[in-house]
Amino acid sequence: MTQTPSECLTLLRQSVPLVHCITNFVAMNLTANVLLAAGAAPAMVHAPEEAGAFAPMAGALSINIGTPDALWVAGMEAAIDAATAAGRPWVLDPVAHFITPWRRALVLRLLDRGPAVIRANASEVLTLAGEAASGRGVDAGDSVAAAETAARRLAAARGCVVAVTGEVDFVTDGTRAWRVEGGAPLMPQVTATGCALSALVAGYAAVCPPAAAATAALAHFAAAGLAARAAPGPGSFAVAFVDALAGVTPADLDQRVHPA
Amino acid sequence: MTQTPSECLTLLRQSVPLVHCITNFVAMNLTANVLLAAGAAPAMVHAPEEAGAFAPMAGALSINIGTPDALWVAGMEAAIDAATAAGRPWVLDPVAHFITPWRRALVLRLLDRGPAVIRANASEVLTLAGEAASGRGVDAGDSVAAAETAARRLAAARGCVVAVTGEVDFVTDGTRAWRVEGGAPLMPQVTATGCALSALVAGYAAVCPPAAAATAALAHFAAAGLAARAAPGPGSFAVAFVDALAGVTPADLDQRVHPA
Amino acid sequence: MTQTPSECLTLLRQSVPLVHCITNFVAMNLTANVLLAAGAAPAMVHAPEEAGAFAPMAGALSINIGTPDALWVAGMEAAIDAATAAGRPWVLDPVAHFITPWRRALVLRLLDRGPAVIRANASEVLTLAGEAASGRGVDAGDSVAAAETAARRLAAARGCVVAVTGEVDFVTDGTRAWRVEGGAPLMPQVTATGCALSALVAGYAAVCPPAAAATAALAHFAAAGLAARAAPGPGSFAVAFVDALAGVTPADLDQRVHPA
Repeated sequence: MTQTPSECLTLLRQSVPLVHCITNFVAMNLTANVLLAAGAAPAMVHAPEEAGAFAPMAGALSINIGTPDALWVAGMEAAIDAATAAGRPWVLDPVAHFITPWRRALVLRLLDRGPAVIRANASEVLTLAGEAASGRGVDAGDSVAAAETAARRLAAARGCVVAVTGEVDFVTDGTRAWRVEGGAPLMPQVTATGCALSALVAGYAAVCPPAAAATAALAHFAAAGLAARAAPGPGSFAVAFVDALAGVTPADLDQRVHPA
Repeated sequence: MTQTPSECLTLLRQSVPLVHCITNFVAMNLTANVLLAAGAAPAMVHAPEEAGAFAPMAGALSINIGTPDALWVAGMEAAIDAATAAGRPWVLDPVAHFITPWRRALVLRLLDRGPAVIRANASEVLTLAGEAASGRGVDAGDSVAAAETAARRLAAARGCVVAVTGEVDFVTDGTRAWRVEGGAPLMPQVTATGCALSALVAGYAAVCPPAAAATAALAHFAAAGLAARAAPGPGSFAVAFVDALAGVTPADLDQRVHPA
Repeated sequence: MTQTPSECLTLLRQSVPLVHCITNFVAMNLTANVLLAAGAAPAMVHAPEEAGAFAPMAGALSINIGTPDALWVAGMEAAIDAATAAGRPWVLDPVAHFITPWRRALVLRLLDRGPAVIRANASEVLTLAGEAASGRGVDAGDSVAAAETAARRLAAARGCVVAVTGEVDFVTDGTRAWRVEGGAPLMPQVTATGCALSALVAGYAAVCPPAAAATAALAHFAAAGLAARAAPGPGSFAVAFVDALAGVTPADLDQRVHPA
């Protein structure tokens, strides 16, 4: 990678990039708090009347299809087109894209617009790559290991970085690959942590190239999850995790990442 | 009841049912976290283009009219019709249905579609049953005791289970009835706990018959509220309550329920 | 002021006013919890079909343009017109109104409807008053001190109270002015605290005149922020802050306010 995760975190906290987020209703509050705690600045702007005008003012764009409808999709497309025209990277979180034909068509249309990074769970990556998967709703029914080949293929075909998150994360640009270890067993019990992570990938992508950004964001989450592991339940884990996102040091990040 | 609350909780945690939620903007995040902590899996899908296609994939559907508008109502109706056609139970939370004529017409239209369970506060139940009430906004101005007769009548007339929540909860299928005791004085100070409870009723309804499901969900909340009582304020209570939803054991639930 | 902050808080907790909020998706849950903890009752009602019918039932209205779109704007305008016709005060939070031409046009249209109070950060106040500012997204890039003259001019021109919040807050009705000191360095790291504060200003405006209401709400936040200062990170600060909003006493408020 061009930068190590620790170098990316130092850059993030120095520049506090503005991240344009069009995300789902469940994830909005946590996403904003995660970005603030980690060292970025959130801006939620979805109206088709202004999403395109705003996108170039942010350092990067994060698109999450967790709770889409026609109006929000119009805002997403306007934002992506404007961000792309302005040279801003954008991150796609294809939440549960396989649950309905309408959502499936939506994600393919977005994918054709060329995200810099796709951040998804194993089931989402497998189905994006055209393989069978056993996901159900927003949950992955497949292991990250089972999606590694699909992730490499998807990244190569789309010319982007693919970050598959789970117990051990996997990041690839189609050629190179890394694993990120850490986190906590309670993390999947807190809703929208994956969605917030995608927005943090966008935050890092505002200050680093895509592969370095994805790896740094995943390492940031992995380190913060480890630091919050002692929490006795999902409610207190969520609180300790946000504290830890603010508290981790650059040095905490590098040891979470290994070449795959 | 066909199953005790403790048997229902064991079933819930074994099967982790997917719950399709169309709820309000205030309640979305808490609802998802409550379902995850309790032992179910949330899926928020509201767009009219996909709500009907998705509903049969979930074990049950939860409809909450806290912040409705025309687009969301179209999604609710599509989801209810598809859930009903697929034999899935659905739960209605008629939030503050008496505050405007438009909302009143909406709730009557939904009611005619036949929910398996209505979960509401006393003022909402009284007005649904055609009686005078003193509710204001989302708050109940009436005691649960004052709504027991109305609840029995509403349940009998609609052929559903009615769960009235307050200091002591009351559940009835029109013939049989139960009271559920527990909770905490701070619970009404945390927004959307009632909304999240309705979704948890749906979670239980995916694995148990309606009366057993409603009673178990209320007992689950009552036991978790009791466990979180020592919290010094509403912010820390909300955190401790989510921890407790995950931590309570099946045996904690049965002692919260008594025949009425 | 006609009432001191401590007198306003006593009134607030005695009457628990219903506050009609049309706010952004990020802020909804925190806003409701802040109102409940502080001593008011939230009601989120945005549909154009019912926002106007509901507004007169509440004691005051809070309008926040953090995540507007055409449907929500229609609801805001219906609510403002109905609230005004019924003699209810309304508060405007012009979130990041300078980021796009569409949002700029929106805020000017709302401003012409005559809010009782504008609650904003320094950059928002400077640009509302027609001056240059260095805000970016939702963050203020200017100090409160730099916006005091603009705030006085805006208040005098619009015949309303202007509350500028930051490290030390500034409240003016165009003639008189006050400073409010307290809070905590972590507060800006918790998303939507400013949005929730605007809703609390509306809560106080339901029971006190605008200048007293704005000053009391800001003093309530300043005192609660001080009480929560020991929190180790933004996640735990948010929890302690909500606890403190419920726990502060009327006497805690007066010492936070000084004539400017």
